[in-house]
Amino acid sequence: MAKRDLINITDLTQEEVGEILDLADDMVAHPEKYYEECAHKKIATLFYEPSTRTRLSFESAMLELGGNVIGFASANSSSASKGESVSDTVKVIECYADIIAMRHPKEGAALVASNACSVPVINAGDGGHFHPTQTLTDLFTIRKEFGRIDNIRIGFCGDLKFGRTVHSLIEALLRFEGVEIVLISPDELKLPKYNKESMTEAGIKWTETTSLEDAIPDLDVLYMTRVQQERFFNEEDYIRLRDTYVLDRAKMKLAKEKMIVMHPLPRINEISVDVDRDPRAVYFKQVRNGKDVRKALIATLLRWKEEM
Amino acid sequence: MAKRDLINITDLTQEEVGEILDLADDMVAHPEKYYEECAHKKIATLFYEPSTRTRLSFESAMLELGGNVIGFASANSSSASKGESVSDTVKVIECYADIIAMRHPKEGAALVASNACSVPVINAGDGGHFHPTQTLTDLFTIRKEFGRIDNIRIGFCGDLKFGRTVHSLIEALLRFEGVEIVLISPDELKLPKYNKESMTEAGIKWTETTSLEDAIPDLDVLYMTRVQQERFFNEEDYIRLRDTYVLDRAKMKLAKEKMIVMHPLPRINEISVDVDRDPRAVYFKQVRNGKDVRKALIATLLRWKEEM
Amino acid sequence: MAKRDLINITDLTQEEVGEILDLADDMVAHPEKYYEECAHKKIATLFYEPSTRTRLSFESAMLELGGNVIGFASANSSSASKGESVSDTVKVIECYADIIAMRHPKEGAALVASNACSVPVINAGDGGHFHPTQTLTDLFTIRKEFGRIDNIRIGFCGDLKFGRTVHSLIEALLRFEGVEIVLISPDELKLPKYNKESMTEAGIKWTETTSLEDAIPDLDVLYMTRVQQERFFNEEDYIRLRDTYVLDRAKMKLAKEKMIVMHPLPRINEISVDVDRDPRAVYFKQVRNGKDVRKALIATLLRWKEEM
Repeated sequence: MAKRDLINITDLTQEEVGEILDLADDMVAHPEKYYEECAHKKIATLFYEPSTRTRLSFESAMLELGGNVIGFASANSSSASKGESVSDTVKVIECYADIIAMRHPKEGAALVASNACSVPVINAGDGGHFHPTQTLTDLFTIRKEFGRIDNIRIGFCGDLKFGRTVHSLIEALLRFEGVEIVLISPDELKLPKYNKESMTEAGIKWTETTSLEDAIPDLDVLYMTRVQQERFFNEEDYIRLRDTYVLDRAKMKLAKEKMIVMHPLPRINEISVDVDRDPRAVYFKQVRNGKDVRKALIATLLRWKEEM
Repeated sequence: MAKRDLINITDLTQEEVGEILDLADDMVAHPEKYYEECAHKKIATLFYEPSTRTRLSFESAMLELGGNVIGFASANSSSASKGESVSDTVKVIECYADIIAMRHPKEGAALVASNACSVPVINAGDGGHFHPTQTLTDLFTIRKEFGRIDNIRIGFCGDLKFGRTVHSLIEALLRFEGVEIVLISPDELKLPKYNKESMTEAGIKWTETTSLEDAIPDLDVLYMTRVQQERFFNEEDYIRLRDTYVLDRAKMKLAKEKMIVMHPLPRINEISVDVDRDPRAVYFKQVRNGKDVRKALIATLLRWKEEM
Repeated sequence: MAKRDLINITDLTQEEVGEILDLADDMVAHPEKYYEECAHKKIATLFYEPSTRTRLSFESAMLELGGNVIGFASANSSSASKGESVSDTVKVIECYADIIAMRHPKEGAALVASNACSVPVINAGDGGHFHPTQTLTDLFTIRKEFGRIDNIRIGFCGDLKFGRTVHSLIEALLRFEGVEIVLISPDELKLPKYNKESMTEAGIKWTETTSLEDAIPDLDVLYMTRVQQERFFNEEDYIRLRDTYVLDRAKMKLAKEKMIVMHPLPRINEISVDVDRDPRAVYFKQVRNGKDVRKALIATLLRWKEEM
């Protein structure tokens, strides 16, 4: 089929990622140039599980490109409840829309969708698996807010065991030069072994620690994640560990002046709200960047489709 | 009130049906001619029960005409839960929208709505009653994919007892010349007597059989439907019968080279997925046709309203 | 922050209210002048509890101004279920949208939202607290359908104890000259003392009665509200009282020829449907006025933001 999809970040070459980030930069600088980019085109946002932030990010992106939106926000308002397969659903949707963004609780659902239909499919999260537009957002944010992606020391803090976002970003960072990774987590939530092996194979320098305070002074980028209570056997462990991994003003004082703090959101307690006004806190800028990079991605996939 | 509605397919004369299908053809051939057809107009999609396919079909149609969409996808997000009557709801909605597409679990709800308000109401399904835009879709599909609606031999297969879609299409076909109908179903799911009487009165030739294999070689059009388990007293009957009415490649070998296979979707098991690539399988084209004929219908009802 | 919000009707000066109503009048007279007013802008409708009428009113308003819409219709399809604070949610949403309309079951939620973000926030109802766009709708309706807001005798009938709409409108009317207020309710549902004190302080003439029939002949405006069964201790009281406060044709015969009947809707039984055709019944016009005044409000808040 003459189209490209984005199921995993590795579906894009390193050069293509760069082109998408460049296009996103241009869209930020000159939004009016793109007011008609997707005129008379539609995106279908098929969200089999709710994710307001991601859904509205895609919808805003398409609207800013002059396109339109159809879709559903949760499975109970979809035909899935009548037992229709994902393949059949997207074969229906391709009669209505030019591009699909799909969120699904089952790993592999977006891939199945992309194989079944003739319009580009963007994976907006499939279970614990991939979430490539979050990774594009993170890369765009590091480049835009810190200034470069290569030759950085980036710390990942919190739940590194289950954090899909972390795994994907690490995988993407393997392709950049001079990246050094610091893994900051309790023993219960360490990064899985195979992720560490990938880093070692790719020649990435990485270290592991349980102390955010020890790690923070040397970081260029601090990537915070939620520590979810349901990951722990007992509440005491959770409460003890949770506080260790809360970023507050005291810990921010230990950090470099140019460090940036990222977070995929939603944030619960793991970043104190008094950090929000620190100019190094870029997690809300990250949201805007997510919308902008999705604009670039949608435009790129639709351009590629037309060229084929 | 100076407006027309579409509650049942018979609300349209045979000539009007033809004009709508002609307009749909022109919209397919020259979509750009209609980019501004409904500019500054809005459709309200009031879906008191979820039906993603139908809802998105209406919404896509309106967007392709340059119009906008408001609405709700299920009753729990509507004022119905506060006890408001359908009449009051549409009197509110006509303050916001120029045309209404309503899906409701209760028979007659769309008629009540159409009587209460001054904007055109399209019945998008009212319980087991009518679903006239599905019938327009089916007529458009037969004409477009088979080449004509008159002088065809059409087989209906599966659940002919409860299948609203089947009853409506048969009712519409009574007005065409030389149509011959073959009813293919288990004894438990035969077409109701009054539908048969209508056919006889209209002078339509019809026959009845329990064997899809026997019937298929002579058909121009095969209209498949779902056989739902909940229609049967026991699971054994269901399983035995279900397989008899599954269309697969073996059965397709018995059919004419020019036969077309239709299905209102969603499809569960009653058509094997390996039939999908057979050029005679038009059920996904039917979805696109549904969107196109709804474009023509919306445009027509809004034009009629302006002329009055 | 260089922006204005509308959390309570008193956030607007009396002069500003007048300007918004004037703009709404012009939008009704010349809708085409405003087709591009909000081009390339988006409203986010964040409805943490369903309210179809209000949500669709905002969405229609924005679409008629050439803008676009994103949002959610109920909390279960939002990030709130993941424990995100309202502050964080609106900091995310301001990356996507130029203005926010928020409905929330908790009093004060819209105020919190307005303090957290840099785009204008319109309170679309926060619990039993404020609902300022309903009040604007009511003021616009009185001015448009009766001809003036000052020097009127307005009766409020039904549940004056819990009716948020009534409290807000009374508060707004305190600023107009020569307004006389008649409170018509059962003893169980009388207007709270502090509202009466506000009227007295503002020098407003007010009286109280339990009889709609006694009060109706002298009224310029009759504002009806729902009497909800759950407000009563026992069903007998409810049934006895409910009927006393039902407006029907018999009671309408007692009213002035130029009186207008308003109702915030949804209406259950408190206005007999045979009153709907009486030209004095303006409650469905009120819905259209609500859409038009929201257009004026959205345009005004966005203009103010640009001027700052």
